[in-house]
Amino acid sequence: MSVESVLDRIDSQLPDSLERLKAFLRIPSISTDPAFTQDCDRAADWLVADLRSIGIDAEKRVTPGHPMVVGHVDGPGPHLLFYGHYDVQPVDPLELWDNDPFDPQIEDSPKGRVIRGRGTSDDKGQLMTFVEACRAWKEVHGALPCKITFFFEGEEESGSPSLVPFLRDHADELKTDIALICDTGLYDSRVPAITTMLRGMLKQEITITGPSRDLHSGMYGGPAINPIRVLAHIIAALHDENGKITVPGFYDGVTEISDELRAQWDSLGFDHAGFLKDVGLSELAGEAGRSALEMIWARPTCEVNGISGGYTGAGFKTVLPSKASAKISFRLVGDQDPDAIDKSFRQMVEAMLPRDCTVTFKSDGAAPASVMSIDAPAFEAARKALSDEWPDEAAFIGSGGSIPVAGYFQSVLGTESMLIGFGKDDDQIHSPNEKYDIESFHKGTRSWARILDALSAQ
Amino acid sequence: MSVESVLDRIDSQLPDSLERLKAFLRIPSISTDPAFTQDCDRAADWLVADLRSIGIDAEKRVTPGHPMVVGHVDGPGPHLLFYGHYDVQPVDPLELWDNDPFDPQIEDSPKGRVIRGRGTSDDKGQLMTFVEACRAWKEVHGALPCKITFFFEGEEESGSPSLVPFLRDHADELKTDIALICDTGLYDSRVPAITTMLRGMLKQEITITGPSRDLHSGMYGGPAINPIRVLAHIIAALHDENGKITVPGFYDGVTEISDELRAQWDSLGFDHAGFLKDVGLSELAGEAGRSALEMIWARPTCEVNGISGGYTGAGFKTVLPSKASAKISFRLVGDQDPDAIDKSFRQMVEAMLPRDCTVTFKSDGAAPASVMSIDAPAFEAARKALSDEWPDEAAFIGSGGSIPVAGYFQSVLGTESMLIGFGKDDDQIHSPNEKYDIESFHKGTRSWARILDALSAQ
Repeated sequence: MSVESVLDRIDSQLPDSLERLKAFLRIPSISTDPAFTQDCDRAADWLVADLRSIGIDAEKRVTPGHPMVVGHVDGPGPHLLFYGHYDVQPVDPLELWDNDPFDPQIEDSPKGRVIRGRGTSDDKGQLMTFVEACRAWKEVHGALPCKITFFFEGEEESGSPSLVPFLRDHADELKTDIALICDTGLYDSRVPAITTMLRGMLKQEITITGPSRDLHSGMYGGPAINPIRVLAHIIAALHDENGKITVPGFYDGVTEISDELRAQWDSLGFDHAGFLKDVGLSELAGEAGRSALEMIWARPTCEVNGISGGYTGAGFKTVLPSKASAKISFRLVGDQDPDAIDKSFRQMVEAMLPRDCTVTFKSDGAAPASVMSIDAPAFEAARKALSDEWPDEAAFIGSGGSIPVAGYFQSVLGTESMLIGFGKDDDQIHSPNEKYDIESFHKGTRSWARILDALSAQ
Repeated sequence: MSVESVLDRIDSQLPDSLERLKAFLRIPSISTDPAFTQDCDRAADWLVADLRSIGIDAEKRVTPGHPMVVGHVDGPGPHLLFYGHYDVQPVDPLELWDNDPFDPQIEDSPKGRVIRGRGTSDDKGQLMTFVEACRAWKEVHGALPCKITFFFEGEEESGSPSLVPFLRDHADELKTDIALICDTGLYDSRVPAITTMLRGMLKQEITITGPSRDLHSGMYGGPAINPIRVLAHIIAALHDENGKITVPGFYDGVTEISDELRAQWDSLGFDHAGFLKDVGLSELAGEAGRSALEMIWARPTCEVNGISGGYTGAGFKTVLPSKASAKISFRLVGDQDPDAIDKSFRQMVEAMLPRDCTVTFKSDGAAPASVMSIDAPAFEAARKALSDEWPDEAAFIGSGGSIPVAGYFQSVLGTESMLIGFGKDDDQIHSPNEKYDIESFHKGTRSWARILDALSAQ
């Protein structure tokens, strides 16, 4: 079964592949917002139908949250699990989008053609690279070169609450020789990458309550505690003057990267200035004395993703609010224990509260970091296949994002994951005007054909 | 012209007076929100019609903002200016109201009958006490005992931008022997009060901008500056550990109250524990070593009235936001200079900004504190008239709220103000479920009849 004819087929079917992707992108499958529950269901149905159209035995599986999509197809090679997610991030602030986020358009940009819309890069466009590679392979050869289990979830952007129970309940069905996850990026437009280090995540929304109702600051300003000020004190205390996180025990399990890995990363020639300039910045924030690449790939963080309290409408209202809230997330690395950090964080917040304030915590999930063991021969085979498709050699890299599923595949299924994706730093995922390069989509699809070919020979 | 027959008339017309007040309250004249501009205009029209119905030569006067209402009526006694405001605070959070804020209802509460709705206490119910006293006087005696100029504005809750220009342009028309302002409270349900110290106000909305767009915290968390964290640091730095405000030069012009005034205030037997317990609190926040009464009446404050930034919807979105904002207000006392403090505050904020952040300031007005000179005999005459109506002697007190108009009457018109009102601490002005005691409305109206009588004899 020659890969060359599959690659030709991928080239010639590209316009059709993009039309299918557009149809998928038009479904506003925002998993964090209950208003879009039915759209998440529609996105799952769309995937089931699309997999069935290429002969894959696919089904929608009910969970307490959004459904999973599972599909099976037999083949001669090793048994692979392919994972992606069909849910997308919210779109607000909507006014910052140039076009309807759910009416994807193909545009010419200064850096080449792109498809623009919510989910183009994270993760519908990415997961469809694999599906389109399978479609081309099937159409050329009548069968796939490996046995493949497709596994798509719809809760990745909302903490994947149904994932671990589903993996546990279906471990026999989902256990494979290796898992392929397409939710990461290229190192740059010439250098493809297999991501072998992923940060973990811990998310807590904290709400501070002071007075039992909103007060008039003329009458109570001074004697009454203001929960916005209490919250600001807590946030300000989470980092020291060197950018280190002050939660007691936070750095337990964080190890320095090896000199060898540091040298490899240095050799990538990361464009620090350009990375910051792209987003209007000029100097590194964060931990003093660390490079940007090290901070993103190998250091933990604590960030405030949202804050609200009091009157936020037009004009002024001189209230002392009863409540103030912040959404706080930690990115974790190495062996940091999310549960221990969660407990220490809560204790720290509670210890900072004045007597008249209370706090509630609303967890939005926690997952440890993942470090892949790259000794399995599949890693080297895939690296070579990627290097054949792209201008430069593929690299083993880290990732700042959290893709907890890789850790769960390890811990629940005992399956090692290869994280291969084609996103770019300027894709604006989680932001307005998200896009995916047509080159990422096209060469990504071709890359998967080469990887299937390489793995089938294992 | 006997006052007793006027008081009888006030008693008998109370049900009609409340119906007129309800009609006025049904107009949602929220001045801070442009969506309610037409309603502010309707409220002014309502007042003009009501004043004309009792023979006052009233007109709506156009300003660049919401209109003024000015009315004149001749009489034998001294020339009085009466001031109130027809605009009201916004109503959010609407879900915390038990009823429609603009469908006022009379209710029996454990502490007596109240009228509930936005503006009942601040300030429609209060200003109508004076109008109803004039109506009763006119109906009983056919004329009023003093020459009166009525002056109502519709921008009190949004910083009164048109007030000073209007006073300057109409100084000859509005200059009187003394001004009466009805926008303050009783000391308690037995003790009426003339407020002689009013805090000033300075309001600034600050917006910190960091990255040029919202970023994914997986990709940029660590190396990129987070404007929410910058804002939290600034807010946390505005007070020291003793609750003193750290803006350089902030306390210039703040003087300690006299031992005599402190003794008088101590003798009022202010219920510190009850004042806090009413709003779910148990200990004094604010400046260490100061009593609540001193903090509210004679000490300056800095409060955060609202904060927003990043993702604040349901669930989580792991963004690093581009912007974060806070509405910050200062209450000023004594001779504090709002312009100098504004400048120092801006310099302090700018000095705290990391290189990659910018700040914008959006001013919402500034006014100095007012301290009345109570030597004029009208003050003692009014105090005696109030004491005749209420169970206990009237007191000269301070107020935590800002009523800048009293300062402008002094500085622009050269007219001294008497601040007399009948609001109570539990009226929940600026909060959901605002109310005004029927007793405040009824005895307030009777109090004005007695004051008109007393002043006409001056």
